[in-house]
Amino acid sequence: ARRTKLSVEDYERGVLAGDRTTLGRAITLIESNAPAHQEQAQQLLARLLPHTGKSKRIGITGIPGAGKSTFIEAFGTYLTGQGHEIAVLAIDPSSTLTGGSILGDKVRMEQLSRQAGAFIRPSPSGGSLGGVARKTREAILVCEAAGFDVVLVETVGVGQNEVTVRSMVDFFLVLMIAGAGDEMQGIKKGVIELADALVINKADGDNLPRCTATQAEMKRVLHYLHPPTQGWHTPALLASSLTHAGVPEVWKATEDFFNNTRGSGVLVQRRQQQTVEWMHALVMESLRARFYASPGVKAHLAAVEEAVANGRQPALAAAMELLKLG
Amino acid sequence: ARRTKLSVEDYERGVLAGDRTTLGRAITLIESNAPAHQEQAQQLLARLLPHTGKSKRIGITGIPGAGKSTFIEAFGTYLTGQGHEIAVLAIDPSSTLTGGSILGDKVRMEQLSRQAGAFIRPSPSGGSLGGVARKTREAILVCEAAGFDVVLVETVGVGQNEVTVRSMVDFFLVLMIAGAGDEMQGIKKGVIELADALVINKADGDNLPRCTATQAEMKRVLHYLHPPTQGWHTPALLASSLTHAGVPEVWKATEDFFNNTRGSGVLVQRRQQQTVEWMHALVMESLRARFYASPGVKAHLAAVEEAVANGRQPALAAAMELLKLG
Repeated sequence: ARRTKLSVEDYERGVLAGDRTTLGRAITLIESNAPAHQEQAQQLLARLLPHTGKSKRIGITGIPGAGKSTFIEAFGTYLTGQGHEIAVLAIDPSSTLTGGSILGDKVRMEQLSRQAGAFIRPSPSGGSLGGVARKTREAILVCEAAGFDVVLVETVGVGQNEVTVRSMVDFFLVLMIAGAGDEMQGIKKGVIELADALVINKADGDNLPRCTATQAEMKRVLHYLHPPTQGWHTPALLASSLTHAGVPEVWKATEDFFNNTRGSGVLVQRRQQQTVEWMHALVMESLRARFYASPGVKAHLAAVEEAVANGRQPALAAAMELLKLG
Repeated sequence: ARRTKLSVEDYERGVLAGDRTTLGRAITLIESNAPAHQEQAQQLLARLLPHTGKSKRIGITGIPGAGKSTFIEAFGTYLTGQGHEIAVLAIDPSSTLTGGSILGDKVRMEQLSRQAGAFIRPSPSGGSLGGVARKTREAILVCEAAGFDVVLVETVGVGQNEVTVRSMVDFFLVLMIAGAGDEMQGIKKGVIELADALVINKADGDNLPRCTATQAEMKRVLHYLHPPTQGWHTPALLASSLTHAGVPEVWKATEDFFNNTRGSGVLVQRRQQQTVEWMHALVMESLRARFYASPGVKAHLAAVEEAVANGRQPALAAAMELLKLG
């Protein structure tokens, strides 16, 4: 069955009414690269904007194997049980390369996807991290306008993804697991420092003592790092997606974080800063793209880079040369 | 006595001959913001470029109180004693604000400044971190052309300075001190992760046991971080600027690093990448400056930022509006 075309008004009405089908189509509109769709998407966003901002925006990362899907399933199901409405979005720019989106298969969160209060959306396919990031940021806004009070943004712990997700959420949760003996899995350069909470997952059964040891170790490591959120001390928590032990405590820490940062003004400040920085990033990205797409620059770039790399031309002189060509 | 004006040829000849007075004046030329000087400086750099690249470029950071000056004095004096020629440059964009450059007073490195093999240059005063960074990068090249085989770039451990210095040196050394009890001084968010070597300073007398404990602790922390240089394991070392204990070992680690990265090709790759990235950063900085200096953007920027911060306009729409004004 061919779907009827929706007007901006139709989208707006449906999203604000919390209609899941319209919500899904609105996100598809946002994800479209067609200029006509993009224009319509921007009109829709402008209309929805007054209805946004009311959710808790939570980022979740962890290396493959840390148990992200099962944790989100357990966490999300707990939240819907408490009466929350939860949207799960994903960022995975590699999904088109690897052939599988991290949330491409709803089966991976079968239980959560059956909850009336949950909406699960796979990673937008295709494109650069920048493109995926824009689509995800805008999808957050649409989900908020649709009435979700918790928006989870999941990312796989590789590359620059974490920094990107950190820049669009309020609260950033890093999922890890205890490793064998002294080793620990699930840590990537710089990621701990972005975390508002560390959660050591799979803390159940025989694995519990190792997780407790990892928890103590992480507390030591956190001791040496400045927490990313002013006035908030990053906790290291234990959780089991299997037994659900520790899941309420993760939510408790999340609520503490929001009470703390709402009270101090840090939350409002963070959101304002994020959105203004994002606008400037979009401007810079556009200036960059225009410049490097100009015929003069394209024709000479490789030769100039080679001369600079091999010390035949000073960097500033080369930059000046390129700027004349652009 | 009024100094004679030097031609580009005069500068070139003097620098290549290792004449300290001409070297100092060449760096002053580079630091000048006058367009005529900048043009001359770029001509000079182009001529000196074939004679650059032969030094070990070493960055040193640490919070105030970590003992940077005394360590550099001890380290530098050890190196000149071994027949090395060492140039010490500084990055401190805050110097004009705080009224004192970190290397403004040569008295702080009295012993080193008396060595024939040493050249000490205070931080260029004035301007943004970007401007100071450009001047320091170019000063490194001039010092190399003048025959120095070790160039130390010192920075005070605040703000973005470390990332800037990391991007212009081969080897990055982070100086820290043992704190009282469980606490440790001298760590700043993200800095440990940039380090090719951690040096716990003031490891002498009564303080030695605490330093040894800190060393063990840092080895644990390093265990969880990816080292910044491929194929190189960041060591945690002890040193005393007072007794000079450990100073030869710091140099030994430095030489090991260069042997390792020269052999693996990582050093050449890092330098090529640094210089090409720098060129692109200069291009982007120029595009950014032009754009935000345009009258249309200047007139509307504050209002647009305010509308975005307060959720009255979507970020992409605002960016598009600005791009039309630029």
